[in-house]
Amino acid sequence: MLTSEQDFLNMIDRHFPVRADGVLLGRGDDCAILDVLGPLCVSTDLFVEGAHFRRSYFTPADIGHKALAAAASDLAAMGAAPVACALSLVLPDDIDDAFLDELLAGMAALSRRLGLPLCGGDLSRGPALILDLAVFGRPGPAGALLRRGTLRPGDELVLVGDAGLARAGLYALEESGRDALERFPAATAAHLRPEPRLNEGQLLAGLPGVRALMDVSDGLARDIPRLLGLGTNLSQGGGKALGADLTIDESLLHPEALLFFTARAQTLGQSPVEAFVLGGEDYALLAGVDPSGLALVLAAMPSARHLGTVSAVPGLRVGGEAFTRAGFDHFG
Amino acid sequence: MLTSEQDFLNMIDRHFPVRADGVLLGRGDDCAILDVLGPLCVSTDLFVEGAHFRRSYFTPADIGHKALAAAASDLAAMGAAPVACALSLVLPDDIDDAFLDELLAGMAALSRRLGLPLCGGDLSRGPALILDLAVFGRPGPAGALLRRGTLRPGDELVLVGDAGLARAGLYALEESGRDALERFPAATAAHLRPEPRLNEGQLLAGLPGVRALMDVSDGLARDIPRLLGLGTNLSQGGGKALGADLTIDESLLHPEALLFFTARAQTLGQSPVEAFVLGGEDYALLAGVDPSGLALVLAAMPSARHLGTVSAVPGLRVGGEAFTRAGFDHFG
Repeated sequence: MLTSEQDFLNMIDRHFPVRADGVLLGRGDDCAILDVLGPLCVSTDLFVEGAHFRRSYFTPADIGHKALAAAASDLAAMGAAPVACALSLVLPDDIDDAFLDELLAGMAALSRRLGLPLCGGDLSRGPALILDLAVFGRPGPAGALLRRGTLRPGDELVLVGDAGLARAGLYALEESGRDALERFPAATAAHLRPEPRLNEGQLLAGLPGVRALMDVSDGLARDIPRLLGLGTNLSQGGGKALGADLTIDESLLHPEALLFFTARAQTLGQSPVEAFVLGGEDYALLAGVDPSGLALVLAAMPSARHLGTVSAVPGLRVGGEAFTRAGFDHFG
Repeated sequence: MLTSEQDFLNMIDRHFPVRADGVLLGRGDDCAILDVLGPLCVSTDLFVEGAHFRRSYFTPADIGHKALAAAASDLAAMGAAPVACALSLVLPDDIDDAFLDELLAGMAALSRRLGLPLCGGDLSRGPALILDLAVFGRPGPAGALLRRGTLRPGDELVLVGDAGLARAGLYALEESGRDALERFPAATAAHLRPEPRLNEGQLLAGLPGVRALMDVSDGLARDIPRLLGLGTNLSQGGGKALGADLTIDESLLHPEALLFFTARAQTLGQSPVEAFVLGGEDYALLAGVDPSGLALVLAAMPSARHLGTVSAVPGLRVGGEAFTRAGFDHFG
């Protein structure tokens, strides 16, 4: 059992290197100092027990991995290259040192692999296990950062990664706990161990015609309007009306998601295609591309799939029919 | 009652300006983009119900103020100028919209006054009210950032602000709730509404001879060793032994702290001078100054007081006697 913040800092130093490129001053002072010579992307992402994960089927290492992965996905969503991260950790009394050690090991392994060194953070006691990750990134080799709210009618929508698969994993884990890992290995991994698509994000930032990018964390139904800049500070068209027409069939679903949602279509009251559009915690990338650039984007990334087209007609349509079901809201 | 994250974002937009200098891209995208042309200071600071504050005597506006003030103090502690902040907020079900509105108003007022625009963040449901503030800063007019762990024997220790006063306020609030505000206005304000010393920090960064700086959040007894770089990644002297000799008498205490701790010396088992050294959540600045610079530092800031001298003899001594009581640990 940790008895002081110093014990925790010693544990952190065992897992995360003290020095890193791009970090002028690392952990141990009032602030870290990042070495920045241009625009810096910053984002924070909460990972809260009960709201985002359960200890019953997340291993400690899964928790450490996913908290950082979800935050890093926001850098991928700008086409940014990783610089550093900071961890604010709220620990309840029933977390022992072995649990914390595994959690940090899971986070440290991803941190190392992504090149996102831990530069600082904070620690407190509290009533639940809560991680808040701040992540920092800079423009990648192509020099560009990709925003939302910059699309025009006729632009094409491209998904890099799966939709609905992580949601199938969540449902399977809620039904069967970790027994679900055997039957739905890809779906449960998509929920427990999502992979932030930093390489694909930087690649997209360098391809001609890619005009907007985001990561799909709340499902396509909720996130496509956000990519279009609707209902946010990002609307650049002075209230211009935008919508999207999607063409989605079951071939777009991962086989495990198709299997899972076909079997439960009646119970859940949604078809597999609807489950794809509703999704949730996909951490796929959603790009808006000028029509002239579509072929190159699809050729450059085997996991990229064309979903549909931006329209001047407001609303979301799938196969020509209005899609009005609400997507995933972590908060609601 | 908020029913969606969008309701919250709308409320945020009512309190915090959408655009700000130094923020290329603000709220509403995957990341914010800061406009940075040199070193960037980053820090995160948790403010957790039960561990750091109670709703019984913190008003919602106090909570919003103090969460940001404590985080901003880490920028002051580097001598940094403010750039931006981000808020990750965990909301329990019993927080209503009026409470949240006041909390954000308290934070927004300080944000405006300090020049720390809100550039992003995250929101989740959870079992307690928890705020995690990420703050970003850059070198001030003098161009320097002041670290810890850079002091030598003979350097002078200077405190800018009060020590022990906020602790008196905490005890008074725990004893009497908000009735304590009338009897101990300065002490309770020091606990409920600390003022981050960003101006003094930047001033210190420009004065000759100021070699190290930190903010005193866990009390002098715990933080002086940290300023010396002991037990951290910051030791630059290869395990060199350092200590400090302090000369502290009751004239250094704020009159309210002196009154409070004199009356409770027996109950608490500590003298007023010990209470000054133990402190806790002071958010004063502690500087290490080359002896040649001491007079100028004291002349430049009326609230600066000379506390003592760095020594080659390990340990902390007050009036020649070893001071071995442990300071404040939020976590322990």
